[in-house]
Amino acid sequence: MTTLAGLLSTVFDRRYVGSAAGDRRDIMTLCSGLMAARDEVSGMDLARRVLDRYRGLDDDARAAFFGWLAGEMEIDAGKVATALADYSADPTPLAHAALMTASEPPRQDLFRRLNRVPGATGQLVEMRADLRRAARTDGALTVVDADLSHLLRSWFNRGFLVLRPVNWDSPASLLQKIIEYEAVHTIDSWDDLRRRLQPADRRCFAFFHPAMPDEPLIFVEVALTRGIPGKIGALLAEDRVLLPKAQADTAVFYSISNCQPGLAGISFGNLLIKQVVADLTAELPGLRTFVTLSPIPGLADWLTAAGVAPADDAALRQAAAHYLTRERRGALPRDPVARFHLGNGATIHDIHADADPSASGQRQSRGAMVNYLYEPDRIAKNLEGLNEGRIAATRSVQSLARQAQIPEAQA
Amino acid sequence: MTTLAGLLSTVFDRRYVGSAAGDRRDIMTLCSGLMAARDEVSGMDLARRVLDRYRGLDDDARAAFFGWLAGEMEIDAGKVATALADYSADPTPLAHAALMTASEPPRQDLFRRLNRVPGATGQLVEMRADLRRAARTDGALTVVDADLSHLLRSWFNRGFLVLRPVNWDSPASLLQKIIEYEAVHTIDSWDDLRRRLQPADRRCFAFFHPAMPDEPLIFVEVALTRGIPGKIGALLAEDRVLLPKAQADTAVFYSISNCQPGLAGISFGNLLIKQVVADLTAELPGLRTFVTLSPIPGLADWLTAAGVAPADDAALRQAAAHYLTRERRGALPRDPVARFHLGNGATIHDIHADADPSASGQRQSRGAMVNYLYEPDRIAKNLEGLNEGRIAATRSVQSLARQAQIPEAQA
Amino acid sequence: MTTLAGLLSTVFDRRYVGSAAGDRRDIMTLCSGLMAARDEVSGMDLARRVLDRYRGLDDDARAAFFGWLAGEMEIDAGKVATALADYSADPTPLAHAALMTASEPPRQDLFRRLNRVPGATGQLVEMRADLRRAARTDGALTVVDADLSHLLRSWFNRGFLVLRPVNWDSPASLLQKIIEYEAVHTIDSWDDLRRRLQPADRRCFAFFHPAMPDEPLIFVEVALTRGIPGKIGALLAEDRVLLPKAQADTAVFYSISNCQPGLAGISFGNLLIKQVVADLTAELPGLRTFVTLSPIPGLADWLTAAGVAPADDAALRQAAAHYLTRERRGALPRDPVARFHLGNGATIHDIHADADPSASGQRQSRGAMVNYLYEPDRIAKNLEGLNEGRIAATRSVQSLARQAQIPEAQA
Amino acid sequence: MTTLAGLLSTVFDRRYVGSAAGDRRDIMTLCSGLMAARDEVSGMDLARRVLDRYRGLDDDARAAFFGWLAGEMEIDAGKVATALADYSADPTPLAHAALMTASEPPRQDLFRRLNRVPGATGQLVEMRADLRRAARTDGALTVVDADLSHLLRSWFNRGFLVLRPVNWDSPASLLQKIIEYEAVHTIDSWDDLRRRLQPADRRCFAFFHPAMPDEPLIFVEVALTRGIPGKIGALLAEDRVLLPKAQADTAVFYSISNCQPGLAGISFGNLLIKQVVADLTAELPGLRTFVTLSPIPGLADWLTAAGVAPADDAALRQAAAHYLTRERRGALPRDPVARFHLGNGATIHDIHADADPSASGQRQSRGAMVNYLYEPDRIAKNLEGLNEGRIAATRSVQSLARQAQIPEAQA
Repeated sequence: MTTLAGLLSTVFDRRYVGSAAGDRRDIMTLCSGLMAARDEVSGMDLARRVLDRYRGLDDDARAAFFGWLAGEMEIDAGKVATALADYSADPTPLAHAALMTASEPPRQDLFRRLNRVPGATGQLVEMRADLRRAARTDGALTVVDADLSHLLRSWFNRGFLVLRPVNWDSPASLLQKIIEYEAVHTIDSWDDLRRRLQPADRRCFAFFHPAMPDEPLIFVEVALTRGIPGKIGALLAEDRVLLPKAQADTAVFYSISNCQPGLAGISFGNLLIKQVVADLTAELPGLRTFVTLSPIPGLADWLTAAGVAPADDAALRQAAAHYLTRERRGALPRDPVARFHLGNGATIHDIHADADPSASGQRQSRGAMVNYLYEPDRIAKNLEGLNEGRIAATRSVQSLARQAQIPEAQA
Repeated sequence: MTTLAGLLSTVFDRRYVGSAAGDRRDIMTLCSGLMAARDEVSGMDLARRVLDRYRGLDDDARAAFFGWLAGEMEIDAGKVATALADYSADPTPLAHAALMTASEPPRQDLFRRLNRVPGATGQLVEMRADLRRAARTDGALTVVDADLSHLLRSWFNRGFLVLRPVNWDSPASLLQKIIEYEAVHTIDSWDDLRRRLQPADRRCFAFFHPAMPDEPLIFVEVALTRGIPGKIGALLAEDRVLLPKAQADTAVFYSISNCQPGLAGISFGNLLIKQVVADLTAELPGLRTFVTLSPIPGLADWLTAAGVAPADDAALRQAAAHYLTRERRGALPRDPVARFHLGNGATIHDIHADADPSASGQRQSRGAMVNYLYEPDRIAKNLEGLNEGRIAATRSVQSLARQAQIPEAQA
Repeated sequence: MTTLAGLLSTVFDRRYVGSAAGDRRDIMTLCSGLMAARDEVSGMDLARRVLDRYRGLDDDARAAFFGWLAGEMEIDAGKVATALADYSADPTPLAHAALMTASEPPRQDLFRRLNRVPGATGQLVEMRADLRRAARTDGALTVVDADLSHLLRSWFNRGFLVLRPVNWDSPASLLQKIIEYEAVHTIDSWDDLRRRLQPADRRCFAFFHPAMPDEPLIFVEVALTRGIPGKIGALLAEDRVLLPKAQADTAVFYSISNCQPGLAGISFGNLLIKQVVADLTAELPGLRTFVTLSPIPGLADWLTAAGVAPADDAALRQAAAHYLTRERRGALPRDPVARFHLGNGATIHDIHADADPSASGQRQSRGAMVNYLYEPDRIAKNLEGLNEGRIAATRSVQSLARQAQIPEAQA
Repeated sequence: MTTLAGLLSTVFDRRYVGSAAGDRRDIMTLCSGLMAARDEVSGMDLARRVLDRYRGLDDDARAAFFGWLAGEMEIDAGKVATALADYSADPTPLAHAALMTASEPPRQDLFRRLNRVPGATGQLVEMRADLRRAARTDGALTVVDADLSHLLRSWFNRGFLVLRPVNWDSPASLLQKIIEYEAVHTIDSWDDLRRRLQPADRRCFAFFHPAMPDEPLIFVEVALTRGIPGKIGALLAEDRVLLPKAQADTAVFYSISNCQPGLAGISFGNLLIKQVVADLTAELPGLRTFVTLSPIPGLADWLTAAGVAPADDAALRQAAAHYLTRERRGALPRDPVARFHLGNGATIHDIHADADPSASGQRQSRGAMVNYLYEPDRIAKNLEGLNEGRIAATRSVQSLARQAQIPEAQA
């Protein structure tokens, strides 16, 4: 729906139902009215008022609203018990329906009713970001987040997402968001952005949702290269020599950024990489290698905690290899980026010292970076292995890990 | 996603996971595999195989599959009871989550996993059409339909729908579907279609969903007129005089058709009318009246059942007025089209005999038709009235109803 | 410019300059005013009035207007002589400019001024169609046509044309024109059209001009086949088996139609074929052969004139081979379609009897058809040959021609 | 034509005609070949080679090429004389055509043939920029410029231009050009640009040509205000208060920039203003006043030349009023910006001292600026007046001019 249509729709609703401006009911009362609305017209109007009202609330009022959602819009255990007893006695469709109704927290229906308003999806995503912040200090709100994320997961499923290239012909309003959302290698300026988007050996792709057409959900920056690079500086350098794209044999995913805190936990990265590999392969049949150049965000903290102080680059690479292949959180790697790529079926291909001289690179990993390799033929096997606790790494990385000097208490 | 991208995506998946052609597992086994899949890549591949497999099934095999969904993918009442007891004892977020999981039939998650495949939404809509047919002879399938329609209602909520004008510049492939889906006044030929779309005093609008961009969900045909018409023939006549659109004061909704049997029960009509009124008002500020010229599909059957045999046009109008304003199904009008428009807040404005000479018009209502009037200022009040059992009709229609000669047993 | 913008522009001009409705000046006076206009605003207004006025003229008034253009808007030979004398005496830039002005008929500037109005280009194309008709009975108008076609050739040069595929997703309003403009194998119905556009082994492409975005200039219909076909019926049959497009090795151009009589003599066909070959090659690298299945429109008339009465299919093929390779108009082939394809560098590849059973096929060529083959590597050589009077044909066609029994007076 | 299609077209041509890389003929020889080409295929190939070759030439070689165009591609006065004699003796269409051919310099046809190559139009525009530079030192080239500008004027006529809004959703690649081409009030940064494009009370519009879709020809920046502003600083200030667009009653054209030096002398500004007034009026019916806030680029130089040294702001305004209303170049105002706006029918509305504190504002006009007012109802009358030597100015501006103290020699 275009903005114009949205405007008209608003105008029309106001004609139908009267201005919301003088409506003094609080947001909880409006929500209750929305749940009770029997016709679409008044329901839509009330949904719009709820969303307008929410926008005007301060943090405390929002927390109070979330508390109300957690408490008043919760299931009634007694009713569930009654419905369950009826269903167990005679599992008719009617009894089944009654049980379904009783066991679904009413706030789920509230969120669905709010989502009917054009443009509401983006607001619900923002609401979840608020909710997650509030839930950090009030654990009881976790149940509200469970319901809202359940719905968002359903609404943002892969079948609804659209992959679009982002390039120097993209709208400036979108590019401004790319600058803002870039989370791995900060974009300093529009010139820096242009260097990442305009050259023929650079690409960027993002997922979008039709109900939030101006908001990227996640994006990946890609460099086309010959061979696998080991230093981020060479990729981003202002004065680098352009590679004619026909000569490229490697696509390097050097930055992946999630854009919407309100969609935390709803993973798009794996599907994004897979789709981008497919699109690039179709465009450039000469590409043979799909690989990342990734940060190791947890390395420095772990080194400190483990009392490991690598004396030189060689020792740092060994320690990083140990950290990535042997340090776990449950059965999975301890490092979050490793968890993501290995969980997609990639292989740890190589580790580089002195690869990211930026302040954040030094702070996170003392400048070390890692290549995760995506090999279509090995992905299924790697995933099977991971399910059985094996981390996929090349022999040379495994060898590095074996050479690492780790204090016994940690090894 | 474009067809090309879809194709590539398929190609790529095949490279990843191997061809599905030789896969001899039955659809139930594939579904179980999909539910167990722990990574996105193999999950997507299995979802695609399930959908491919489903397409190849005959009616009996589909019925068997639905039966399996109803039986094996049902909640386990015992597990619900256990989870409910835990939650009642100590309503922690974890206990809440466990109860939510136990009380949601696993087939809901199955449908969501299937929907991740690009293009799957349309197939799920078709699956529901099959399911509804099958449920007519096997009531046990109703619970599957309840779950699938629950999800479709969430995915097809108003916020995701897009209104688009349909006109003579629309793609022929879309217009072919309009011809096919028109359910009220059959479109005989492309020339007939052109007469309804091309003239400056004719309009057509349809709702679309981004995941099914080539499939209209519902559409309405509109004639711009001076005054409220009482005969459908005048609107559709080949040789009628065109009205300069600046002279139009009335928009007549003379045909509304739902296109997707798989979305039955998920109502778009009210929102469609509302949005079209808003868009037309913005374009043509001279429009004052928004009205339908509607069939009365249940009239003839009711006349027969009630033993009413109107002697002339006047008596037919009286009987129709009685039928529309007094004959009920519960608190609502007995006539399905009346139920729809009155349920949107419209008023019964006038009744016409000899209005639809077509075979279906004669069969359904002995040629009678009705105008439902949409007045923004009265809609809220009409809806309130309807909630209290009052049917909105003009004085003249009420007067007609009072004059009707109905055998006592019926009146 | 969209229609809306066009409308606004009109509205605005009317505000500026006053309504044209009451303007009683004749079209010649308006044209003189336009030539004298010193500012853009009044010039644009007058140009629009001229075009409006022209539309309202009947055939006689148009002929009178063309006569005025030929007479009054002609060069003044005396002024040319003076300017030429000045220039010859002292060829300064000023003298050059004066000569240029004197030797260009003022109607050229008039046409350019008319063309400034948005939408005018299409009207000038129509005006030229009128003009060509009028010139058939009034040879003096030829000079006007020379000037107008000079300008149109400049405005419709290849650099401004846009190639667009025409398919079943194209606007119905465009497809309606395709039905209307098809000049070779009549399209009977929308179903017939769909059979030519929708299947994966059928294509259609058209050239458009940005100033006439809704009007195709020329289009070609293409069938993808295995091997070179010899009968049009097999290509158009309703019940033919679809060819998976990956199996196609041949693209058959079986119908090329010019759409705009007002652009007669401004050739787009060669460029169209060339561009379509390029686009198809890029999409379907498996295509090896680009060939036509073409009518022989002049064959039957020539047979009659030459007193040749082929006794059987073999004799008809021989006679056709003779006609195509030996009968000339100047140095070029006598047959207009042969002239076109040989003039593009194609080779006469094969001749088929009993190939077009339609009434027009029988009338034009007694059912015979011909394949012209486009071989990129031979085109330059064929064109050189043609410049020297040699017609490119395969050995088998040359052999057929030698066997033809042609009465001596003709051979 | 898309870049992809352009690429394919190139690839295909190379297949047809062989690589141009080894072609050692000089550009003049290639041009002669192009003029002699009898078929489209080889003509297109040669045209492409000419354009490629031209791009590789240095300034001296280009000057030599222009000299060749001026000399060798000139009309032959003897042939014109012969053709004129024939035509004067017997003005047949053939004699007319021969005269037309003889009196058109062959380079015009050369430029038309070059323009057939997709993308050539932009290169010809650049060629004219080079040509105009070269003509400054070699007056003989003026005749080439006359021919090239004659053709460009025909190709860039208003009917082919497209007006597009430029805003913060426009492609970054386009906005980068806006930054570069802004000629009146320099755009410092992307933030500065955003302040001019994104707010609801700011607009920008540009004309484009379909054959150069990524290149603006001219653009205007507009501020929506209440009342007529007198200082540019207030319009561009970073911290200004946004005006709700419904409250705006005035549209201020505060910057108009031509983008293509190769289109110098082909005026788009008047039509741009007219179209923008029409579009804004349609969108915002509350707009009553259309006005500029313009520089007075010739003021400071004239003050110096005239020996006028205004003592204060009041004296500066008086001197500026005198300069704008009384100092002429021929019958028109001496100031180039005044010439443009008065030539469009505008009125000098007011003059402001201390209005543009920028360095260029001080240098050009000692900080003074002027409002030109566009009143639809007065434009025709103002233009008539201008034709008779009267400059349209308000009474207050006329009064200012009368008060100016100008040394007698100048007054």
